[in-house]
Formats: sequence, structure tokens, C-alpha cells
Amino acid sequence: MLSKNQLKYIQSLHQKKYRQQHGAFLVEGAKSVQEVLQSDFQTELVVATEGFYKENAHLTDHQRTPVEIASVAELERAGTLESNNAALAVVRTKENRPLLAGPNEIALILDDIRDPGNLGTILRIADWYGVRKILCSETTADVYNPKVISASKGSFTRVNWWYGDITRVLAQATSAVYGAFLDGEDVHSLGFDASGYLVMGNESNGIRPEVGTFVTQRVTIPRYGDAESLNVGIATAVLLDNWRRTIN
Amino acid sequence: MLSKNQLKYIQSLHQKKYRQQHGAFLVEGAKSVQEVLQSDFQTELVVATEGFYKENAHLTDHQRTPVEIASVAELERAGTLESNNAALAVVRTKENRPLLAGPNEIALILDDIRDPGNLGTILRIADWYGVRKILCSETTADVYNPKVISASKGSFTRVNWWYGDITRVLAQATSAVYGAFLDGEDVHSLGFDASGYLVMGNESNGIRPEVGTFVTQRVTIPRYGDAESLNVGIATAVLLDNWRRTIN
Repeated sequence: MLSKNQLKYIQSLHQKKYRQQHGAFLVEGAKSVQEVLQSDFQTELVVATEGFYKENAHLTDHQRTPVEIASVAELERAGTLESNNAALAVVRTKENRPLLAGPNEIALILDDIRDPGNLGTILRIADWYGVRKILCSETTADVYNPKVISASKGSFTRVNWWYGDITRVLAQATSAVYGAFLDGEDVHSLGFDASGYLVMGNESNGIRPEVGTFVTQRVTIPRYGDAESLNVGIATAVLLDNWRRTIN
Repeated sequence: MLSKNQLKYIQSLHQKKYRQQHGAFLVEGAKSVQEVLQSDFQTELVVATEGFYKENAHLTDHQRTPVEIASVAELERAGTLESNNAALAVVRTKENRPLLAGPNEIALILDDIRDPGNLGTILRIADWYGVRKILCSETTADVYNPKVISASKGSFTRVNWWYGDITRVLAQATSAVYGAFLDGEDVHSLGFDASGYLVMGNESNGIRPEVGTFVTQRVTIPRYGDAESLNVGIATAVLLDNWRRTIN
């Protein structure tokens, strides 16, 4: 059973302010908790139903992670998920280390992606397409938001991110910088370089002009019908799919 | 101002049972209402703020659509959106007419897509890639669900759908039937036919075996990283992108 203070602490991590203050975030649901326990993240505490604990004791024992047994009702009160009959974990955030695309590597740059669901989906897509580095503008949604972690379906454990001034990184980039625009080159016929950056812009306004000036190749997904746009997660997947296709 | 009966009627359309009983559904938000007023759907009633009405009177006048002026609070009470400062429309559902892929046409078949957000996203993707016909298993989410209509961002006005026994349609198909599986042919090297069907399966279980037997070509999106799967909306977009690329 959770103490009053534990409950209060866990609930505080619903908010960015307290995640930053405590250097911790929440991972919820069976699969995500299993994945985080097998990752290089450091877990402070697991709150689990008796059933989940029994089945996964090897994972928590291995790292000597403290476990509190709780009822489903307690779990749901502590966390953000509407239903959670398994577990949640309180996990240490990582240091904000700078990232650059290496040789033969694709890195993503997110310029002001605001929706946590979109950011979580993008982590999952990055993980599918073997993209390990995501550079985020400071205005991009907080990756430690429980909605992002949930939507990433465990992929947050396999992708690295950095938040900061992306224009300063781009100013130093030595490889190609592709950017998603509505008036770029058709990605069906474009030959991508083996390494570089793909910049994705805000859901409503696209890439900011001050970021766009660093883009060396504007790219576009050809449209065959009448929808005005594609969701930014969808567009990221289609662009990475075309990139991988041309270099493999 | 809305009468009590109007409010009750509109609220009843949040539920599938009453949408079917009344043959009507809800369209919410400025852009979606504007699009539906310019489409071939028949609108029974528009509930609008004074501001929205003044700016869009040419659209409602054109079809002589009855309009009720309402406050933002009334609009939000009547509809399903958390915030709506523009309008909602009560629109007649269409007849459930059978659909088949014509020559040089791609049609989508959805086998048990349960999540309304995914279905709405798929409508938008279909609209982007010029797919005009979607055949849905009876267990697929209701396209008239307000969440589907919202997520489609107006694309529901440009795509046609049919609900029924998709195995009976597939048994009569004379063109290629592609199906998304994890063990199919790599879509980066596959040459697609100019016309045919693309079958997408359930979020957790994929395509049912009884549907899979009609698939003439299993297709797969190559994976370069470690995510277990892609969301069904994402996968639909990547597959349609590869299909369009090879035939255009």
C-alpha cells in the first residue's frame, strides 16, 4: 500500500514543474514498465498489483528496485491512465546531453511539436526506422509527459533526445539537412544522403523561418487526393520510409 | 438559443444507437462544419455562435439550412468537443451502398479497426492518397462517431464507405488484394498493380484468418530498428505511399 507521501509524490509527477524539480517521471502500464526495467533507465520505485509483481519479480529483483504492492484503484489514483491493472514506475530522468548525427546516421530535429500524442508516436516511428537521436526545440512537448511515454509504446527506452536551441546545432551541421515543406522536392524521386538530419515542424505552422534557413533540401510527400495536410507523425513515417528505401 | 428538445436530440447523437435511429450524426468545429456545408451531405441544422454565423451565412443560406444561434457554453454542452467556439452541424447519414474498386483504383478494406482516432486518421490519409472507397467490417469503429469525424479533419466529406461482410466482397474481387502482415514482401521492392484492394487489420490482432485467405499478396514495411509494430494509421500511410510511388 502507498503512503500518503508516496501518493502525493507520484501525483506531482503528472506536472512538468515537479518532474523537473524531482528529476523523475512516470512510466505506466505492464509493457512500458517491463521495458523500462530492462533498459538503462534508473527506476526509483515500482508500484504494482500483486499479479504483476509475481510475474515480473525477476525484473525488479535484478536491479533491486523497491516495489510497493497496490490495488488497481490505488494505481489509477496515483497515475494518469484511465485504466491500469498492472504497474507504474517512478524513473529518473536523464541528463540533457547534446546529440549530433554521426556518419551513416539519420537524426530527427523537432521544431515546436506541441502535441504529446504526436511526440510519442514520433518516438515509436523513430525506433521502427532505426533513428536513435532526436533533437527538440525548447518549445517541443516534454518527452517525460506521461502521454508521450505512453504513446511511445516502450520506444522511449531505445531513443535518445536532447532539448535546446536547434538553430545553434544546425549552424554547425556538416551533413545534409532535410526539411518537410509543402513545396519541396518529391521524396519519391529524391536520392537521400546516407546521413543527415530530418527537420519536422509545428502541427499548424510548420518549420519556423529561422530554422528553415538551415535546411539544405526541402522535401515533400506527393499528394494524390484532396486532404490539406498529413498529421506530423504520419509525415515523419513516410519521409523516413522514403529515406531508408533510397539508401539501403 | 437551443430548445430543450433540440439539446436533447443533439446530445443523443453522441451515441451510435441514436445516430442509427435518427439517421443523423454530428459535425463539430469551424473547419469541419464549413466543409460539410460545401459537400453533398444534407445538413438538418447548424448551431453556431453569432460570429461564425455572420462569417459563414453564405454557406448556410445557399442550402437554406436552418441555423440556431448559441453561446459557446451551449455549443460545448450540446456537442462532444472540449472547446468549440464556432459551430456544430446535425447532418443526415448516407445510405450504406456497396463499393468496389474500379479500374486504376485503389480501395481500402478495414478489418476490425476499433479505435475511432485511428479510423479518422485513415480517412484523412485515404483522402491525401486519392483513395475514395473504404470497405469496413461490421466490427470496425462507426465512421459517424464524432471522434472519427473530428480526426478526419474534413476528409469524411471526400471519402465513401460501406459497412458489411468484407469476406463476401473479397470472394468476388477480380483485382489484386494486398494485405498488411509482418511476414509479407518488402514494399520497397514490390511492384504494385494499378488497381486493387489494401486490407488493414485490427490494432492488436491484425487481419483475421478468414479475411487473410483472400489476400493475394502479403506486404510488409521493412523495419530498421526495434519497435515491435507501427500504428495502423501510420502503416496505412506508408503502404499507400509505396503503392502510389510504384504506379505513378
